[in-house]
Amino acid sequence: MALYNLHEDRFFDPNPLIRNVARDIYQTVKDLPIISPHGHVDPQIFVDNKPFPNPTQLFLIPDHYVFRMLYSKGISLEALGIPSVNNTPVETDPKKIWKLFAEKYYLFNGTPSGVWLDYEFNIVFGIKEKLNGENALKIYEELNEKISSPDFLPRTLFEKFRIEVLSTTDAPFDTLDPHKKIKESGWNGKVVPAFRPDGITDLSNQTWKSNVEKLEQIVGYKITSYKKLIQALEERRKFFKEMGATSTDHGVVSAYAHDLGDEEAEKLFQKGLSGTSTQADADAFTAHMLMQMARMSVEDGLVMQIHAGAYRNHNKDVFTKFGADKGADIPTTCEYTKNMQELLNKYGNDSHFTVIVFTMDETNYSRELAPLAGHYPAMKLGPPWWFHDSIEGMTRFRQQVTETAGFYNTVGFIDDTRAFVSIPARHDVARRVDSNYLASLVARHMISMDEALIIAKDLTYNLAKEAYKL
Amino acid sequence: MALYNLHEDRFFDPNPLIRNVARDIYQTVKDLPIISPHGHVDPQIFVDNKPFPNPTQLFLIPDHYVFRMLYSKGISLEALGIPSVNNTPVETDPKKIWKLFAEKYYLFNGTPSGVWLDYEFNIVFGIKEKLNGENALKIYEELNEKISSPDFLPRTLFEKFRIEVLSTTDAPFDTLDPHKKIKESGWNGKVVPAFRPDGITDLSNQTWKSNVEKLEQIVGYKITSYKKLIQALEERRKFFKEMGATSTDHGVVSAYAHDLGDEEAEKLFQKGLSGTSTQADADAFTAHMLMQMARMSVEDGLVMQIHAGAYRNHNKDVFTKFGADKGADIPTTCEYTKNMQELLNKYGNDSHFTVIVFTMDETNYSRELAPLAGHYPAMKLGPPWWFHDSIEGMTRFRQQVTETAGFYNTVGFIDDTRAFVSIPARHDVARRVDSNYLASLVARHMISMDEALIIAKDLTYNLAKEAYKL
Amino acid sequence: MALYNLHEDRFFDPNPLIRNVARDIYQTVKDLPIISPHGHVDPQIFVDNKPFPNPTQLFLIPDHYVFRMLYSKGISLEALGIPSVNNTPVETDPKKIWKLFAEKYYLFNGTPSGVWLDYEFNIVFGIKEKLNGENALKIYEELNEKISSPDFLPRTLFEKFRIEVLSTTDAPFDTLDPHKKIKESGWNGKVVPAFRPDGITDLSNQTWKSNVEKLEQIVGYKITSYKKLIQALEERRKFFKEMGATSTDHGVVSAYAHDLGDEEAEKLFQKGLSGTSTQADADAFTAHMLMQMARMSVEDGLVMQIHAGAYRNHNKDVFTKFGADKGADIPTTCEYTKNMQELLNKYGNDSHFTVIVFTMDETNYSRELAPLAGHYPAMKLGPPWWFHDSIEGMTRFRQQVTETAGFYNTVGFIDDTRAFVSIPARHDVARRVDSNYLASLVARHMISMDEALIIAKDLTYNLAKEAYKL
Repeated sequence: MALYNLHEDRFFDPNPLIRNVARDIYQTVKDLPIISPHGHVDPQIFVDNKPFPNPTQLFLIPDHYVFRMLYSKGISLEALGIPSVNNTPVETDPKKIWKLFAEKYYLFNGTPSGVWLDYEFNIVFGIKEKLNGENALKIYEELNEKISSPDFLPRTLFEKFRIEVLSTTDAPFDTLDPHKKIKESGWNGKVVPAFRPDGITDLSNQTWKSNVEKLEQIVGYKITSYKKLIQALEERRKFFKEMGATSTDHGVVSAYAHDLGDEEAEKLFQKGLSGTSTQADADAFTAHMLMQMARMSVEDGLVMQIHAGAYRNHNKDVFTKFGADKGADIPTTCEYTKNMQELLNKYGNDSHFTVIVFTMDETNYSRELAPLAGHYPAMKLGPPWWFHDSIEGMTRFRQQVTETAGFYNTVGFIDDTRAFVSIPARHDVARRVDSNYLASLVARHMISMDEALIIAKDLTYNLAKEAYKL
Repeated sequence: MALYNLHEDRFFDPNPLIRNVARDIYQTVKDLPIISPHGHVDPQIFVDNKPFPNPTQLFLIPDHYVFRMLYSKGISLEALGIPSVNNTPVETDPKKIWKLFAEKYYLFNGTPSGVWLDYEFNIVFGIKEKLNGENALKIYEELNEKISSPDFLPRTLFEKFRIEVLSTTDAPFDTLDPHKKIKESGWNGKVVPAFRPDGITDLSNQTWKSNVEKLEQIVGYKITSYKKLIQALEERRKFFKEMGATSTDHGVVSAYAHDLGDEEAEKLFQKGLSGTSTQADADAFTAHMLMQMARMSVEDGLVMQIHAGAYRNHNKDVFTKFGADKGADIPTTCEYTKNMQELLNKYGNDSHFTVIVFTMDETNYSRELAPLAGHYPAMKLGPPWWFHDSIEGMTRFRQQVTETAGFYNTVGFIDDTRAFVSIPARHDVARRVDSNYLASLVARHMISMDEALIIAKDLTYNLAKEAYKL
Repeated sequence: MALYNLHEDRFFDPNPLIRNVARDIYQTVKDLPIISPHGHVDPQIFVDNKPFPNPTQLFLIPDHYVFRMLYSKGISLEALGIPSVNNTPVETDPKKIWKLFAEKYYLFNGTPSGVWLDYEFNIVFGIKEKLNGENALKIYEELNEKISSPDFLPRTLFEKFRIEVLSTTDAPFDTLDPHKKIKESGWNGKVVPAFRPDGITDLSNQTWKSNVEKLEQIVGYKITSYKKLIQALEERRKFFKEMGATSTDHGVVSAYAHDLGDEEAEKLFQKGLSGTSTQADADAFTAHMLMQMARMSVEDGLVMQIHAGAYRNHNKDVFTKFGADKGADIPTTCEYTKNMQELLNKYGNDSHFTVIVFTMDETNYSRELAPLAGHYPAMKLGPPWWFHDSIEGMTRFRQQVTETAGFYNTVGFIDDTRAFVSIPARHDVARRVDSNYLASLVARHMISMDEALIIAKDLTYNLAKEAYKL
C-alpha cells in the first residue's frame, strides 16, 4: 500500500541552492487568488450547485487527457463509459469503469495528469492511499461520500479554491443563461463568458449550417449575407461584453490571417450557405474572419486569443462513435511569422489592442513567438498549452521565451480545463514551476530575490488580470 | 599519459540527491540481459565464430559514426581505408589507419561515439590508457592480441555481453542461411532476422530491378505484376517468421502512407519494371506499400517499424566512390500527424497490431509522436535514433515524450548498431541515462523509489521484449 | 536602491560540483584576447576616436535589441528618439529618452540584453546602482562624465577590452576608407573589413539599382551584364583581401544554393536592371550567387559565412518610418539539408574551403546542421546567433550540437554586435557559458579536467582564429 506523500518541495530542483529559494518564492504566491481567464468548465454546475454524480463522472468521463491514455493501452472507450453519439452501447456501471481506471493508474506516472489527479485525490479530497487495482473500490466509496457532502458542492469548491474569476468558453449563439442565473442568484462567484465563434467562422465545421441557424434565432433575423453575419457577430460580442466577457477565442489549425475584401468574403459565405464550399474556401474564410475579429477587438476592446495548431478529430472512428474532444486531437506544425504578418501590420502597433497567441508546436517559442511578442505592442504570449501544460513543458517555455520576450510579454498561467476540480492542482503546478524557474535565475545570480518576488506575483496574479482586463 | 577512469557515476547528475538515487536504480538494471530487437550486425560472424581481423577492421571500418567525424576534419576516406566501390585505391595498412584515428581521437570528446569507444577499449578489452597519437601502436598491439584470443570470439562476446536475443536486418530475398546455420550449430545464442523490404518497395532504389530479380529467384517464379509482388512478399514474411523474425522495418524519407488501390499500384509497378517511374511515382508506391505492410502485419502479427527522416547518400562524391552508409545520411524534417493518419485510421485502433515509429527530427517528439502514441492503441515510440542515441538525446526524448505518452507507450532501448562490440556500451549508456531520468523524478518527488525501480526494469528489459514479442 | 552585485559565479550551475569546476575553467580563459571575427561596429569611431556623444546615443539608439523591448511594451520609437527616415519628428532630448528607458529597465530581467547592460554599466563604467526610474538622471550624469574622459575613448576601450582583431561588415561598393585611415594612423588596433554583397546579390533589395550604380562608380566601368557583375565582385573581393578581409558574409532568408548557368543568370540580371524581376527571380538569383560566392571563396580563400532565416522588416509601418534594423526582423523556419546539397556537393569536400553556417531556427541544430558539419570537411557551425546569443541559447546549442559535430566543427564565439561597448560583456557571457558546459561534462565524468581546459581555450580563442584565418 503506497500512502500519498505530496512532498512540499515537489517539482523543485533538488539542489538546495535552488530548492530553498524556490520554496521561499512559492510561499509568497501559493495562496494568491486564482485568475482563470480561459477554460471550459460548464457554468451550469454553479447554477445547479448539486453534488457531482460519482467519482467516475467527476474525474474520468469529462477528462480526455485521462481516458485517452487508457485508450492508448488498449482499453476501449466503450468499456470506459464514454458517452457515444451514434448509439454505440457503452459501459454504464461507474464502479466497473473506476476499477479499470485504477488498475491502469500507474500509466500516469511522470505525467501532468497523474500530478493533477494526485493533488485532487489527496489534497482536495483527503484520500490517503495512491489509487491502484486493489484499493479501487474502497477509494471510490471514500470519494463518493465526500462528493455527496455539502463541503464539496461546486460553489463551495469555487470558494475554497479561491477562484477570483472563472471564464467559460461560449458560442456566439449561446444564450449565456447560466451566467445570467449565477448573477441573479446572489452568489458572489464571478463566472464570465468568452466569445468563441469557431462554429460560425469555420465553413467546414460539420454543424456550420445549423450553427448559423442558431445564430439567426438568437439575433432574430435571417443571416443571408456576409454583411448580416458581421452585424450578428458584432451584436453578440456586445451582448457578451455586457455579460462580463473580456475576451474572444479562436481555435484554428493555422494562424493565417488575411483580408479578402467584402466582395470575396461574401462569395465564400454564399458558397457556405449553398453547401458548395471547399476546404480551401473554408481556410480562406477563416483567415478573413481572423482579420475581422481583430478589427472588432480594436473597436470593442475584447482581448483576442488565437489557439493554433490542433489537428482536430484525427481518429475518424472515434469521432464517428464518440464525437469531438475525445483525446484524438493531434498537434501539427505551426507558423506565425508569415501567417500573422498582415494582422500584426494592420493592428499590432496599436497598444490598446491585445492578441494573445498560443501554440501546440514548441518550435515556435524561440523562433517566432518570442521575437514577435518582443516587438509588437499588441501581441502577448499565452502560456504553454494542452500537452505542454506540464512541468517540463512550462520549464521549456520559460527557457525558450524569456530571454527574447522577457516576462512582461507573457500573460501568466491559464488552466484551460474542463475538469473543474483540477483547477487548483493546475495552478499549483504552475506556481511551483515558475517559482523554481525564478529560483534558478536567483541561484545563478541573474536576478535578485527582490526582483524574483515581484515577478512571481506578476506571473501568478497580475499579468493574467491585466492582460485579460479582469 | 591519460589513464582511463570510467567513473562508476558517469553521466549521472552530479547533484547527490539525484546521483545517489540514480546509482541505486542503475544497480538494479545494469546486469539485466540485453534485448537487442533491432540492429545491423552481420550474422555470419556467429556462424564463422572466427577472431576479428584487427583493431582497425573491428572498430573503425564498419562504423560510419566514427569515420565520418575524421572525414569532417579533412582526413580522406581513402586514407582511412574505407573500401571503395569503384576501384578507387584506398589505404590497406591497418596500423597506418589506426595511427590517423588515434591522433584525432580527441575529436570524440563529448560525443556518444567517444563514450562507446572508451567503454569498448577499457571495459571490454581492458585497455588502460586513453588512445592518442603517441600510444596508438602500443594500444593497437594490445587490442590485436586480445582479439586473437578465444576470449574475444564473437560467440564468446555474445554470451559475455548477456545478449538474450539479437535481431539482424535482412532483405526479403536474403536466404537467411546464417540464421539457419546458427540454429543448426547447436549454439544457444538467439539471433533472429527482421524483414526489411526497402530495396523492393522503393522503385527509386538504384538496384531495384536486380532486387526484384533476386526476389524472383528465391520465390521461384516471375514477378510480373503487383499482385505477384504482394504474393512474394507475403511468402517471404511467412518464411522470416518461421526463421524467428518478429518484426519488419521500413526505412523511408517520409512516413506518408496512402492506399492507391490495386489498379494504380499495378500501374506504378509496371512503370518500375519498364524503368520509366519518376521520383513522384516511387514516393507514391512507397506510401502504398506502407499501407500493405501494415495490412500484412495485422494479418501475420509481425511488429512494424518505421524509421523516417534520413536523407540518404547526401554526398554524391562519397556515394560514387564508397557506396551507401558512409556517414553522409543527413536528417530532414519529418511529419507524422497528417502522413500517418490513413494508416492509423485504418489499423491504429487495433491493439493487436503494433507499429513502432522512429524519427530523426526531434521536433516530432512533443508535437506529434507523443500525442499519437498517447492515443492510438497500435502505435508506440521507438527510442531516440542514430544521432539522437546519445546522452543528451535520450534525456531530451524522455523529457519531451513522457509527460504526454507516459513510459508505457515507449519500447525500451534499441541499439540499432552494426558495430557488434559497441552493443554493451550502448545499452550501458541507455541504462544510465534512464536511471538518471527516473532519479530526477524521484528527487523532485514526482514518483516514488518503488515506482522508479519497476519502471527502470520495464525500460531496460520488459518493454522491448513485449513490444517486439520476443 | 539596488546595488549592483555582478557575482563572480554568475550563470554557473549552482551545484558546487559543477560551479567549482566552471570557476576553475573560466579563470583560465577570462583574460584571453578577444577575437571578434564578425560584427557591425562602425569603423569610423576608431578613425575619429572622439568621445561618444551621450549615454542615450551610446547604449540605446544603436541597439535594436534594447529599444524593441521598450517598443513591445507600448513606448513609441518616436519617444525613444530613434532617427526616422521619413521626417517623422522624434524626441531629441537624450535625458528624457533615458528616463523612459530607466523606468522600464526591469523589462530586461532575465534577458541577455539586461545581462550585457549590467556588465557595461557596472564593470565597464563603474556604475554602482542598478538603473531605475528614480536614479535615471543621476546615472545619466555619471555615465556622461565617464564618456567624456579620455579613459573611455573608442581606441582606449578597444585596448582595454583586449580586442586582438575586430571585423566590420561592408558592402562591395564601400571604399573602406576608415580601414585605410586606421592603418595609416599608426594605431595598432587591428580592424578588418568583411565582404557582404547582399545589397548587390539580392535583386529585390529596395536600393538594388543604386547599389549597382555605386559599384559601377567604384570599379570604374558600367555593369551592363552578369559577366561584368561577376568581374566587379571578384575585383572588389581582391581589394577587400588586400585591406585585411578574411571573410565574406551572406544574409539570406533561405540557404538555398543552385547554379542557374550563365545564360539564365544573365537573363535574371537583365530583368533586375530593367526593374521587371519578380520575388521568384530574386530568390533564384540569390541562390545562384551563393554558388558563385562559394566558387570565388574556393579560389581566393575568403571564408564564407551564411546567415539564414531572418525575415527582415516584418513591420512595414516601422520600416517606412525608421528603416531597416529596428528590431522588427523575425526568424522563420530554415532548411539546410536539401538547400545546401548542391553547394556542399560541389565545394564541401574541399577542406581548403570553409563555409560557416548560422541559423535563427534552433530546430536545425540537431536535425541538419550538426550532421552536415559532422560530415562535410568544408562546413562549420557558427555559434548561436541573434536571439539565441544568450545563456539558455548557447547552452541549447552545445547540448544539441556537440554530440554529433563535436567541438571542433564549431568556430568559437562571435559577438555580431553593432554596440561596441557590449563586446566584452558578450564575450564574458560566452566564456562563462562554455566553461559551465564543460564543467558539466567534467562533473558527469565525460571528459577530464585536462581535456576541458584545452577545449575551453580552443572555444574561446583558437577556433575563431583558425576558422577565420586571422
